[in-house]
Formats: sequence, structure tokens, C-alpha cells
Amino acid sequence: AAVMAPILLNCMGNDHNEYIKQLVQVKNPYLDTMEEDILYHFSLSTKTHNLPEMFGDVKFVCVGGSANRMKAFAKFIHQELKLPGNPEEIKDICEGTDRYCMYKVGPVLSISHGMGVPSISIMLHELIKLLHHAQCRDVILFRLGTSGGIGLAPGTVVITDKAVDYSFRPQFEQVVLGKVITRSTELDEGVASELLQCSSELQNFPTVIGNTMCTHDFYEGQGRLDGALCSFSNEEKLEYLRKAYESGVRNIEMESTVFAAMCRVCGLRAAVICVALLNRFEGDQITSPHDVLVEYQQRPQVLVSHFIKKRLGHIV
Amino acid sequence: AAVMAPILLNCMGNDHNEYIKQLVQVKNPYLDTMEEDILYHFSLSTKTHNLPEMFGDVKFVCVGGSANRMKAFAKFIHQELKLPGNPEEIKDICEGTDRYCMYKVGPVLSISHGMGVPSISIMLHELIKLLHHAQCRDVILFRLGTSGGIGLAPGTVVITDKAVDYSFRPQFEQVVLGKVITRSTELDEGVASELLQCSSELQNFPTVIGNTMCTHDFYEGQGRLDGALCSFSNEEKLEYLRKAYESGVRNIEMESTVFAAMCRVCGLRAAVICVALLNRFEGDQITSPHDVLVEYQQRPQVLVSHFIKKRLGHIV
Repeated sequence: AAVMAPILLNCMGNDHNEYIKQLVQVKNPYLDTMEEDILYHFSLSTKTHNLPEMFGDVKFVCVGGSANRMKAFAKFIHQELKLPGNPEEIKDICEGTDRYCMYKVGPVLSISHGMGVPSISIMLHELIKLLHHAQCRDVILFRLGTSGGIGLAPGTVVITDKAVDYSFRPQFEQVVLGKVITRSTELDEGVASELLQCSSELQNFPTVIGNTMCTHDFYEGQGRLDGALCSFSNEEKLEYLRKAYESGVRNIEMESTVFAAMCRVCGLRAAVICVALLNRFEGDQITSPHDVLVEYQQRPQVLVSHFIKKRLGHIV
Repeated sequence: AAVMAPILLNCMGNDHNEYIKQLVQVKNPYLDTMEEDILYHFSLSTKTHNLPEMFGDVKFVCVGGSANRMKAFAKFIHQELKLPGNPEEIKDICEGTDRYCMYKVGPVLSISHGMGVPSISIMLHELIKLLHHAQCRDVILFRLGTSGGIGLAPGTVVITDKAVDYSFRPQFEQVVLGKVITRSTELDEGVASELLQCSSELQNFPTVIGNTMCTHDFYEGQGRLDGALCSFSNEEKLEYLRKAYESGVRNIEMESTVFAAMCRVCGLRAAVICVALLNRFEGDQITSPHDVLVEYQQRPQVLVSHFIKKRLGHIV
């Protein structure tokens, strides 16, 4: 915390308050008193790594479940931003661990988070601390994911309006020392409409804004009939999905509520963009051919890349 | 479901009921009516893979969070069982996906499950279906993990008595179609005492049986003061950990309750063996040197390997 990024020194005048406002904020009074902070699941530390130097210029953080997919996104955005160097030689910053992988491409960070709320929550704690230690400012976070669609054709991209729980409430329940507290899961409306505008500028790019339901499992919690355990009928399943649809839910995934809640508490603008791999009214199993699924999974990447290029002035 | 494993044909006489009892049981009436079952997150399917041939002889399934660690375990057990072939050439059966990795070594299956309840739950649904489709019988499951210890020296191995939630209750809450149901998290007592006996046969192998608390995050839920968010004092943290200790909790991890609950519902004998990487009464960060942590992480593997070797008659 003693090291000051060069950009901070330029901003000590009238803009200081505005500058401080845009810094990534942790909500932990103890953090800046620690002599060292080990970001254990990234295999990084404030003592062994110069985080401001490594990450100080980060403006866009893109996260997604699969390590392979986030590596592919890093290569893709490298090409899209026409950056120098060979995208094939991109290096995993977290190579000291296999918990997550992380790639930096200019102002873009691409990180994997595994599956489910607990897995992404560990990553987000350490990411937000990393952005804080690196004195990053004015950062936008994107979750790029896959999901089950409700009443949507496979391949449709859903930009999340509200992230909701299994009862369609826009909230996330967090246990703190054995007590359950509730956090809001509202996302940044401005970023969501900007993303929708971007989708309209792309060819053949079916996109909707809708609510995203976040569950803690893939089978019983999402009403699938094909898990190892299933205690309900097809009619009960369809009724639950219909209720979800009526409340505004258009897709189901497993990370959006904690992502929205943690970003909101820390004042980070955030958006969730997931492609629907299937229409859950029509089935449970993901049966599309491999190459079709691969193309679907690229769609959130294409959309966010378009957003980033516009923001950076590559597209007017 | 139409194909019958050879072993089944030999067992149609008096032993039939006993045989059926030991088969791995799914609790889903629809599963056997499906023409194909795609185990999506394993990249396996009943149509494209002969699961009885590939997995019919599996007797021990060992699961753990880290892909690298479960690969290392597969190589280790290959050497320990003195099996033919080069352990370095072991192949990831799930190479078509990066969600999980899976290795088969004789009667032992080694699988990674990522971090947190949702991630291991997806894996367990597909694993239990796999064992069912493969007509496996008499299978024991082990979770080999890392954890934070409570009142234990780092490096101590904890064999789980009861897996408990954040209120120290031996139960797991599962959402099914928007409703919360509660499942018991009791584990197999016989396997736990057999494991404790095994630990006493190893040199310098500090081991206890105790309750294991399963949380849904690594920071606020486990009372850490070093996350991006922290709203409590050191005294409040220590009070929570003391209460946990008094209720019998000796370590904290993030998967045990759903692992115990799902195995129990499906009649699978199961055990959880985690090493404590630190004593949470003394701190939050994992500061031990890398080589010390590597040795600690091998301890659950050494213990389960000893158990398997005894069961197979390699050690009398």
C-alpha cells in the first residue's frame, strides 16, 4: 500500500475525489494493515509480485467457468485489439496453481472461475483484492458464460437484467459467521443497455435482456429429469420453468447472483452475458453437435469484444 | 440398460438379492427409460462409450478438488498397486472437456471435482450415473481434500465423523424446484474406523476423527479476516471458531455435506479425509512453504492408498 501508481501522482488536484471514487474498493478494514497478502488460489502475493506494475492498467475483467474457454478468449481479444506479439505465446499468470487460470491482454484480464457460486466467490475475493492492491480504477467486470435457456432458441445470448435466486428474488444469501445475510444482486443498467446496443450492430446475433436464475446445482435445482436423483414429474418441472419464465427469467446458470452481489458491494460495474445452449422447455440434455456448441460459446466473447473495442475507440 | 454385465449373469441364483443390493443405485425412475444418457461434464455418453467395459471393475473412487493432485494420486496408486505399464502415460478419460479430469488405475478411479458444493455435486450426479450404467457393485467413495484445521497442528489428517453445515448440523439443504429439502450427511462409520486403524499403522501420521464443517465460501463463511469483504472483528471470528470446536468440528472445507448426502441417498459407502493446512485459531493465510504444503497434501493419498492395499490383500 506504500507504493503509489504513477497515475495517482498525476491526480492529486481537483480530480482527487473523483479518482478515489473510481478506485476498486475492498470492504475490509484489516486488509491495508497486513504486511503481506497471499492470494492463495491465484498463487500471487503482494510480497513476491509487483501487482501495480503487473495489473495497474487493467480496465476490463472477463471471467468464465472453463479454463480452455478463457484462454481462447484471451487469444481472441489479442487478435481483435491488434496487439503486438504472438497470441499463441500467451502465458497463464496463475501457472503456480491449477485452481484458476489468468491471462492479461493489454487492458483486458481473462480469468476462469470454475463452476458454481463457491468457486467463483473465492476467485472474486482474490480478484477484487488484486485490483485493489494494483490500484486499478474505472474497471468493468463481465461474466461470459453458458446457460440453459427458458423459452429461447439455442444460441440466443442473454444479457442479464437481474440475477435472481431459486425463488426469483434479486438477492444473494451469504453466510457470515453462521448468520445468513442478504445482498442485492442488481447489475449495472448502463453497461447492459450498451451491450444490447452492441448486439444490434452485429450480424445474426439473437440477443435478449432478461433475468438470470442462479442455482446451486445443475440437476435437481434446475428441474432436470436426468440426474442421479430425481423426485418430481415432468409436469412439475415444466410448471416450475413456466413460473420462472413468467417472473422474467430467460436463462439458468450457477454463478450470477454472487458475482452481481460482490461487484455491487465493492462498487464495481458488472454485467453477465450467457449464451443459452438449449431450450429447457424442450429437454434437459445438451445434445447439439460439438462444433455448434463451440460456436455458441464464442457469442458472449464476440459481444464483449465488440463492447471493449468501442470503448477503446477501435470502432467509432 | 438392455446390456447385462457378465458378472450379473453369474449371480442370478440365491445371491441375486445380495447382488442387487450392492449395485450402485440411482434414485431416478426416468433414467433407465432414456435412449441415451450424455454425461455432459465428463464428455462421456452411453451411446458413444461402453461404460460397463470401461468401468465395470471399479471398486474405489477417489475424488479431490485439484486436477493436478488427482493426476498425481493416479500415478501414486499405480505405483503402490504395482500395476503393469508406465504411470506417466496415464490418460485423462475426460480429455474432451476441461470441467473435470478422470483417471482409471485398475479398480481405482481418480477424479477431480473443483471447489465448492455445486461443482462437486455436478460431478457426483454424473459419477453415480456412470457407476450405475457400468453396473458397478460394492463401491467405496473417498473424498481426499485440503482444509483449515481448528485447534490442530498443520499437517494433521482429519477423518470426518459427521459432515456439518455452518450451524454445526449434520444436514445438507438441497433446493428442488424452488423448495428447500434437508438430507442427512452421515458417513460410513465402518470405513472411518478402518481408516483410523490404517493411520495407526503408518509412521508419523497425526490423524484424528472429528466433525467437518462445510461452507459455501472460503472467506466470510469461514470467518477469515483477509477477504475482499469483512464485517466482523477478530474476537467475533474466534468466538465462532471456538463454538465450532466445542460442537466437535476439527476442520473446515467446502464439499463434504453434499458428498455425504448424495452418497447416502444412493447407498454408497463414503468417507472424507482432509489434511489441515493451517490452524485457524492462529491465522487465516496459508503461509507454509510450497514443499511443506505438497507433503501435507500427499497424506490423505497415503492413507487411502494404505486402505485400498489392505482391502486388495496387498498388505496382510
